[in-house]
Amino acid sequence: MRSKLPHIGTTIFTIMSKMAQEEGAINLSQGFPGFGADPELLDMVAKYTKAGYNQYAPMSGIPSLREKMAEKTLRCYGAKVNPETEVSIVSGATEAIFSSITAMIHPGDEAIILEPAYDSYEPAILLSGGIPIRVPLNSSDFSVDWERVKNSITFKTKLIVINSPHNPSGYVWTQDDLDQLAELVRERNIYVVSDEVYEHITFDGRPHLSLVGHEELRQKSFVCGSFGKTFHVTGWKLGYCIAPEKLTEEFRKIHQYVTFSSVTFLQYTLAEYLEKPERYESIPGFYQEKRDLFLTGLKDTGLEFQATQGSFFQTASYGHLSKIGDRELAEKMTKELKVACIPVSSFYHNQKDDKIIRFCFAKENSDLEEALVRLKNLG
Amino acid sequence: MRSKLPHIGTTIFTIMSKMAQEEGAINLSQGFPGFGADPELLDMVAKYTKAGYNQYAPMSGIPSLREKMAEKTLRCYGAKVNPETEVSIVSGATEAIFSSITAMIHPGDEAIILEPAYDSYEPAILLSGGIPIRVPLNSSDFSVDWERVKNSITFKTKLIVINSPHNPSGYVWTQDDLDQLAELVRERNIYVVSDEVYEHITFDGRPHLSLVGHEELRQKSFVCGSFGKTFHVTGWKLGYCIAPEKLTEEFRKIHQYVTFSSVTFLQYTLAEYLEKPERYESIPGFYQEKRDLFLTGLKDTGLEFQATQGSFFQTASYGHLSKIGDRELAEKMTKELKVACIPVSSFYHNQKDDKIIRFCFAKENSDLEEALVRLKNLG
Ligand SMILES: CSCCC(=O)C(=O)O
Ligand SMILES: CSCCC(=O)C(=O)O
Repeated sequence: MRSKLPHIGTTIFTIMSKMAQEEGAINLSQGFPGFGADPELLDMVAKYTKAGYNQYAPMSGIPSLREKMAEKTLRCYGAKVNPETEVSIVSGATEAIFSSITAMIHPGDEAIILEPAYDSYEPAILLSGGIPIRVPLNSSDFSVDWERVKNSITFKTKLIVINSPHNPSGYVWTQDDLDQLAELVRERNIYVVSDEVYEHITFDGRPHLSLVGHEELRQKSFVCGSFGKTFHVTGWKLGYCIAPEKLTEEFRKIHQYVTFSSVTFLQYTLAEYLEKPERYESIPGFYQEKRDLFLTGLKDTGLEFQATQGSFFQTASYGHLSKIGDRELAEKMTKELKVACIPVSSFYHNQKDDKIIRFCFAKENSDLEEALVRLKNLG
Repeated sequence: MRSKLPHIGTTIFTIMSKMAQEEGAINLSQGFPGFGADPELLDMVAKYTKAGYNQYAPMSGIPSLREKMAEKTLRCYGAKVNPETEVSIVSGATEAIFSSITAMIHPGDEAIILEPAYDSYEPAILLSGGIPIRVPLNSSDFSVDWERVKNSITFKTKLIVINSPHNPSGYVWTQDDLDQLAELVRERNIYVVSDEVYEHITFDGRPHLSLVGHEELRQKSFVCGSFGKTFHVTGWKLGYCIAPEKLTEEFRKIHQYVTFSSVTFLQYTLAEYLEKPERYESIPGFYQEKRDLFLTGLKDTGLEFQATQGSFFQTASYGHLSKIGDRELAEKMTKELKVACIPVSSFYHNQKDDKIIRFCFAKENSDLEEALVRLKNLG
């Protein structure tokens, strides 16, 4: 039997979370919150399942949640979207990304990925017979090298997959980034899949510029988001995709046969929860405190870093302290210091190792503080 | 932009359910229960979400649910499976089927589908660049014409997709069917995707023979099932796939990038719910009553039918009463008699119309009784 994805093994997120658990380490590896969700949100879950919302939801999502998403999109990004024809609710941002890529890529099409990149883009491209074209981000600050992106475009380029706030670096796109991208795809038959799962986690007052808020880009973009990342419930596997009608039609043709629909009572729960915008508007402040706490302590560890601009991740360089590989360091840290992190080489197809590790600071403050104490023994 | 699935529109299930709602008709079309789930089950949902099981589950499912599935498989089918390496929990049987097919089909591979067939098999095959080979079931009783299946095998055949209890006909495979299939795939490089979502709904004491219970077939099969269909919660989108280790490895590589994992607190809920086998062992009796009630009334409608052997569907022929197409009849019935059903031509790639309609009897007895009164005006 020939494998469809011969080079794929267990993801680094699974490997490190498992190791953290086995070692009793503080788990700053896989990106999920270490604290509970809003009790009000959980009460709604109980309410809607007991109210009987337990049969198939409409394939594209329940109307009230799609409407709430349209309101949120207008409020956050000044963009009017049609909830009926442009918003789809799916089983997590992973499915949104998979279905978007699958809808667009035909065999032989090229899709540009900016590396380091989240690990799900490439397999989705490969499974549709596409060719991933990997363009490195600037190594200084993980900003986009637009000249390199431009030079990698060919007549076969069909898609660019982007991600802001960026995992693992936290780099947040500027207006100039959006305009550069718009210029690139203008008058070309190129579409965009935009992974915006950290849309509500940006720092120091920096805004998240969604592609749906860009008049020109939104015409050619699938904007993928996650309720789980925003509301501290990554295990709910509920996400969405916003795209213009023609793209949404193609997206739904895939979604229909991948999962068909997503958990009904969770959709009702989110529709009610989104009624109060402060519930997502308070998120940046909530995470700013955690980031600042983490960075203050990180200064005393000897690691080098630039403050993350968005997401709940902070990367740090250790090359001046140690010459061992980043996977080995992550394992050592987990086993000896009892703090787990992610080696950033896992975000490169060729495991490029710049001696950078990634921490997730979506954890209880007490865990962050204890982890920082332990990390002082790193040097 | 070129569509990946140019011929695909909205599924008949969505169309008919929407029409039923708009017309205020009793909805015997889309296959979902019209009654509530066990209150104990819903209490567990509330318990586990409040207990904090809201972050990512392990990619392959939580261990306790996989273990419970292994116990159930032993109890129901006499088959020992390894919960660690052979059982995966995914986001609904639709995802189980999609990920199985995607794991196996390379461009140019042929996959055999027995028609009439559920609508999700073919798009999954096409999206992997496969070639669907459609073999008609015997038109008398929807049993399998093994000679035809055999004659349709070529050196390109990679997969056979089967479905028992069968949707829409309710035909339940016999031991002879399994043995014939085993003979076909024996010494050939052919695998099986087995859609067994109605495994717990069989009638008149007829057993469901799962492929996992067949010593030879299980070595080459992906057995796909649904918690939603079994426990009256189709909107939970939780399913599973049982396959030997080598196949499970390939299956998980796909699942990992399609949805990554499935709702955590629902997995804990099901793990506890499965502790009492009577919860699934009572299902055949529960549905037998509904089927018998429905069939008793159906005799007075003038429709012709053979009692369904399994699933919660009953097909019926109307060709002796009317010459109009089955889609037209379904629409007319919905609008005029206020009873919605599914035209069986939708289960054929070429819309073959044998003047057969499908009813779902997973409804409150009072709704079934009222629908039967209305159907008396059909003739
Ligand atoms: C789906 S597991 C990975 C979670 C995540 O987004 C990350 O850690 O980068
Ligand atoms: C996913 S909607 C279809 C439900 C079903 O299995 C059917 O009605 O056949």
